[in-house]
Amino acid sequence: MAKLPTRQEDYSAWYNEIVKRADLAENSPVRGCMIIKPYGMAIWEKMQRTLDDMFKETGHTNAYFPLLIPKSFLSKEANHVQGFAKECAVVTHYRLKNAEDGSGVIVDPEAKLEEELIIRPTSETIIWSSYKNWVQSYRDLPILINQWCNVMRWEMRTRLFLRTAEFLWQEGHTAHATAQEAIDETRTMLDVYATFAEETLAIPVLRGVKSPNERFAGAEDTYCIEAMMQDGKALQAGTSHFLGQNFAKAFDVKFAGKDGKLDYVWGTSWGVSTRLMGALIMAHSDDNGLVLPPNLAPYQVVIIPIFKGEESIVPLKEACARIAKLCKKAGVTVKVDERDTNTPGWKFAEYELKGVPVRIAVGLRDLAAGVVELARRDTLTKSSVPETELEALLPQLMTQIQENLYTRASSFRAAHTYLIDDYTEFQRLIEEQPGFYLAHWDGTAETEEKIKQDTKATIRCIPLPNQAQDQAIGQITDYATPGLCMVTGKPSAGRVVFARAY
Amino acid sequence: MAKLPTRQEDYSAWYNEIVKRADLAENSPVRGCMIIKPYGMAIWEKMQRTLDDMFKETGHTNAYFPLLIPKSFLSKEANHVQGFAKECAVVTHYRLKNAEDGSGVIVDPEAKLEEELIIRPTSETIIWSSYKNWVQSYRDLPILINQWCNVMRWEMRTRLFLRTAEFLWQEGHTAHATAQEAIDETRTMLDVYATFAEETLAIPVLRGVKSPNERFAGAEDTYCIEAMMQDGKALQAGTSHFLGQNFAKAFDVKFAGKDGKLDYVWGTSWGVSTRLMGALIMAHSDDNGLVLPPNLAPYQVVIIPIFKGEESIVPLKEACARIAKLCKKAGVTVKVDERDTNTPGWKFAEYELKGVPVRIAVGLRDLAAGVVELARRDTLTKSSVPETELEALLPQLMTQIQENLYTRASSFRAAHTYLIDDYTEFQRLIEEQPGFYLAHWDGTAETEEKIKQDTKATIRCIPLPNQAQDQAIGQITDYATPGLCMVTGKPSAGRVVFARAY
Repeated sequence: MAKLPTRQEDYSAWYNEIVKRADLAENSPVRGCMIIKPYGMAIWEKMQRTLDDMFKETGHTNAYFPLLIPKSFLSKEANHVQGFAKECAVVTHYRLKNAEDGSGVIVDPEAKLEEELIIRPTSETIIWSSYKNWVQSYRDLPILINQWCNVMRWEMRTRLFLRTAEFLWQEGHTAHATAQEAIDETRTMLDVYATFAEETLAIPVLRGVKSPNERFAGAEDTYCIEAMMQDGKALQAGTSHFLGQNFAKAFDVKFAGKDGKLDYVWGTSWGVSTRLMGALIMAHSDDNGLVLPPNLAPYQVVIIPIFKGEESIVPLKEACARIAKLCKKAGVTVKVDERDTNTPGWKFAEYELKGVPVRIAVGLRDLAAGVVELARRDTLTKSSVPETELEALLPQLMTQIQENLYTRASSFRAAHTYLIDDYTEFQRLIEEQPGFYLAHWDGTAETEEKIKQDTKATIRCIPLPNQAQDQAIGQITDYATPGLCMVTGKPSAGRVVFARAY
Repeated sequence: MAKLPTRQEDYSAWYNEIVKRADLAENSPVRGCMIIKPYGMAIWEKMQRTLDDMFKETGHTNAYFPLLIPKSFLSKEANHVQGFAKECAVVTHYRLKNAEDGSGVIVDPEAKLEEELIIRPTSETIIWSSYKNWVQSYRDLPILINQWCNVMRWEMRTRLFLRTAEFLWQEGHTAHATAQEAIDETRTMLDVYATFAEETLAIPVLRGVKSPNERFAGAEDTYCIEAMMQDGKALQAGTSHFLGQNFAKAFDVKFAGKDGKLDYVWGTSWGVSTRLMGALIMAHSDDNGLVLPPNLAPYQVVIIPIFKGEESIVPLKEACARIAKLCKKAGVTVKVDERDTNTPGWKFAEYELKGVPVRIAVGLRDLAAGVVELARRDTLTKSSVPETELEALLPQLMTQIQENLYTRASSFRAAHTYLIDDYTEFQRLIEEQPGFYLAHWDGTAETEEKIKQDTKATIRCIPLPNQAQDQAIGQITDYATPGLCMVTGKPSAGRVVFARAY
């Protein structure tokens, strides 16, 4: 196999090659739409299962709303339509017919819809139009619903997992009797996402609020988690929106309070998508390929027999089966690759590329000595381990690898997070050493836009001042104190995080 | 609450009311598309989880292919396009813009697609176009892939769950080196579906083959499972197709065998959908509402305190919590409804409507005596049970209820399955006592069509002669012997099953 491009040589090509060669996804014949292959899908399914459990523990249930949205719905919330009308797939007809010249099928002009339908880019409008029928009184609140589905945004430049026309995601849509309750929900879900990112993806994230410019179209406030990739760029890994009463007003969703008074309902929405697959790949992988945290690996251990001649086949296959059984007993998922169509060396490279956390090789000499060769994907280290110790060792090792990946990513982020006060310096540094830059900003959209034009860096978030956030911004803890904007010298309430972003 | 219409009075209204009042689903503002509400979705999720485990146990993995299919793909398989082009949603544009008169948004005529895209009605074409790139040699086979997704068919007459424009389903798509292997796969998946229907849905099903008329567009053979509803009509609950080399030829998917010779790949596809929700509802429910088998109930037990005055609140809430804990310990899922906004009577009716398998009521007098009142949803019987016996009793009871529902549905089917040899008699009986009619048929499409025109009955399947099928057709075991067609008197190889169908 040809070697991967290294991160140093060509970060972008390195990413694309890993996605392709680890069999995660590929482009489809439909522009911008991807095919998620079984290995990639198995990882996404693990993410789904973990998140779904977390949503249910926090009181949410799943539902399903239509794929198609009447065009007029989009217009009901003024900001929303500006944000989403420009990039949506439009269904105009409902039938094909045979071409008269026998050349195939054509759109039947008689089957034109009275009102065009949009493939959902997000579901606030269709969901709030239903909530209108579901809510009469405070007793009907809160509504805590989540939906797993596909959505579509007609992006011009697409990249597997990171930005695709169709993607898979979950979208939570909740309705509440008070603003405070909705804000609490928004924050709870932000914390769920942050916990998931840190404990399951092993990626440290910043929790913050978006500047008005970067808000979700139709939200009062957008909270987000931001992760750092190995090229120092930021990746928005999840958002949680406080919608105020905007969608309730757009769809006339009112409730009678305990006092009988009518008021509009308060809303939130929150989502993460298959984009997380991109974050996972870029946060941990190395020049040998994908590196997976054990919590998300489709199989945590791969066992490879080192066949040497006909007479080695039976005893080695027996040994592999025995060790696989040990792994399962230890609660560790396992795959045995005893194909004779590929050499051990080929297999080693293959599973390294696929990021399997632990590889166990079994040879005749080791077998005689009662040991196996164990290789860790994260550190690329090998050791000889007595077979009798595997059952106790493997679960510990999984925890260690999971923690090591998190620590490594945290250290990387700390090493690439900077305080900056001088704008000229910032313009140079964001180019030379990409990372998170904590800087003072005067709070205006104009300054934000100027910085974006000058440097391609955007405000990733206004960091939240609490919970584990000191850890989250490396050594820097004094970011919340007031200062002067690095561009205009006007007062700033506290530093915000600038970075170039995916 | 107003009473439900009874099955006797108006079967169709009874079904619609249960779907609505048990909070399973509702119609959406988009014609023919449904909203699956949380309670309905929880049942569907349980079906998904069970099936997904069964698919994985039989060696399949999940993947995800694009929602949209290029129009030209549909035309590549001649039969397929005839079956699906007539009822599909067509995407023609990818952008909206503001109307110049400020009236809202309109389709941007400049954003017209070069080739129209179809929302998948099923994914054979897009998937086989990928398999072309995935398969070179016999080593790449078999491919055993499943996909969970939404699909769309522009049905003119829709009904919640039974026939909707958009529905949720899974579609398996496999590729094999030999015809026999593909046929075996088709049969394996038919058995998976039958096992699922009988063990999880508690619905007995006939396993059979479709007549050529009723085959999937593009298949060589369509196998199916057919269930009987309480109005004696049949419902096709799942299909498994042997595709021969049809899609491999349409998309030029060839492989090199061990001998180096090129041949087209053999294929299968198989699917079940949210239609199963309709089957579940219609197979078991009664005039009081939904009846759920314990294997699919979102919660298997509901606990309701019978408050009597302020001083009863604390001890009854404590008792409910204690009993809920017992249930969980027994591995039974549970909900406690201690709201004071509704009376016990209202709650009894509500959970009866929702089909919760077991209701436990806790009153002060019972509490003092150390007993609870336990009501079974399937039999509507009540008994007084010592609290100390609950933990042992409940798991047994769940098994009993699950089995009872299956037995009841089997008896019903046996009582409504008939041998018939006289066509005049058949025409009268299919109207007077709907059910499954085992009759001889000469094997021609003309006769099949005539029967359909005369009676609205269709051939549901040519029953398979083996596995538990005698049980499946009630007392009738001699259906596979030759005879004479009831319409034409021509020879018939064996009886086939006629019924009116959903």
